[in-house]
Amino acid sequence: MTRYKAIISYDGYDFSGFQRQPHARTVQEELERTLQRLNSGQEVVVHGAGRTDSGVHAYGQVVHFDLPGSRDVEKLRFALDTQSPEDIDVVAVEQVADDFHCRYAKHQKTYEFLVDIGRPKNPMMRRYATHFPYDLELEQMQKAISTLVGTHDFTGFTASGTAVEDKVRTITEARVELDGKRNLLIFTFTGNGFLYKQVRNMVGTLLKIGNNRMPVDQVERILQEKNRQLAGPTAAPNGLYLKEIRYDE
Amino acid sequence: MTRYKAIISYDGYDFSGFQRQPHARTVQEELERTLQRLNSGQEVVVHGAGRTDSGVHAYGQVVHFDLPGSRDVEKLRFALDTQSPEDIDVVAVEQVADDFHCRYAKHQKTYEFLVDIGRPKNPMMRRYATHFPYDLELEQMQKAISTLVGTHDFTGFTASGTAVEDKVRTITEARVELDGKRNLLIFTFTGNGFLYKQVRNMVGTLLKIGNNRMPVDQVERILQEKNRQLAGPTAAPNGLYLKEIRYDE
Repeated sequence: MTRYKAIISYDGYDFSGFQRQPHARTVQEELERTLQRLNSGQEVVVHGAGRTDSGVHAYGQVVHFDLPGSRDVEKLRFALDTQSPEDIDVVAVEQVADDFHCRYAKHQKTYEFLVDIGRPKNPMMRRYATHFPYDLELEQMQKAISTLVGTHDFTGFTASGTAVEDKVRTITEARVELDGKRNLLIFTFTGNGFLYKQVRNMVGTLLKIGNNRMPVDQVERILQEKNRQLAGPTAAPNGLYLKEIRYDE
Repeated sequence: MTRYKAIISYDGYDFSGFQRQPHARTVQEELERTLQRLNSGQEVVVHGAGRTDSGVHAYGQVVHFDLPGSRDVEKLRFALDTQSPEDIDVVAVEQVADDFHCRYAKHQKTYEFLVDIGRPKNPMMRRYATHFPYDLELEQMQKAISTLVGTHDFTGFTASGTAVEDKVRTITEARVELDGKRNLLIFTFTGNGFLYKQVRNMVGTLLKIGNNRMPVDQVERILQEKNRQLAGPTAAPNGLYLKEIRYDE
């Protein structure tokens, strides 16, 4: 068997997330179905680096899978891309070592979160950004977001009841910018791992701070007190993008 | 009766165009339905400045309609916006003179056409840009597009069999730019009026020129010979946006 790593992008709107589950359309299932066709009907298991939730998009999701024999990677990419549904695109395929695992190999993930601040909203972006039509102070959000950078226990920003025990993660980049031409606020987070709903909870909190309904130092307080009750609401999934995954050499 | 002018934006993907027609979902019908509700069940006729085709989007379509009495325009805008389907947004409403007609009042229209040049395409843009994954020389297209500016007979760029007799129009602005960050080619055209399918035919021709399958001076030849056979194919509607309408004072 030969192991392949693929970079894929998808429009999450019509998917119940990445991970296979009964009675729901998922990215994993669609990829596995296409690969099975390309593998003479034999089942192929796809592993994903990030289990994006229902409605979350990806530009740079990474998956791996095994196929017998050896294939031309560009032909394989083309076949996978053209035979997948139109809301999935296969950006790149490469052969990797047999022990490469997209989830467990050390990597940095970058997530982006788009907020449509237009009044009214842009109808073309309703599936691709979260609409927030209230006043926002960019500077307040920029101050608050900078305090997320570093190694912290992110318990206060994750959904309660998650199975993961170690909630310490390192964020190496956290910023928010305004794209005035497109009326978009763009949040960017890079780190060595993110907890369940962490990005959406951080964004929900930052929007509340920008709207002056929470103080700038609320982020530090949430990190210290590890209390989900102190954080803002979970931002909607339609603004979230798994942008890029970079593996350590 | 009081006449109101409204600026609306819509995602054309799920509409069979602007103009009302039997057994098809149209923007005009949806607006008229909402207005009828806001008018105690009495029918309201909506006139549109541009009859966008099936799948064509708008950021700045202009419509007008009459309602009895006088209303607060911001309240009317809000009611229309929130009661319209989510793929229509009502950007602005103002009261206008009883003899204002959005189509016949002198105006300039700006259309934009987006081409996704990514390989593979961006799945998030598949409804909002036309994918063109072939080589393109921007400079060739820029030379060719500049020859469209001016007053010309655009017969060669319109669909054959159109009822309009006078096919002379003036284009005051025609340019194409690359948005490298978003992998988009953006065509912009401003003029005092455009013929049926004119913008999409101009774009189809310019893409062929950019791809070196037509010479740069093909545009001038089409204008001179007024022959649709010389032009490129009609570009798909999903890349086209009615961007703005500016009325003369």
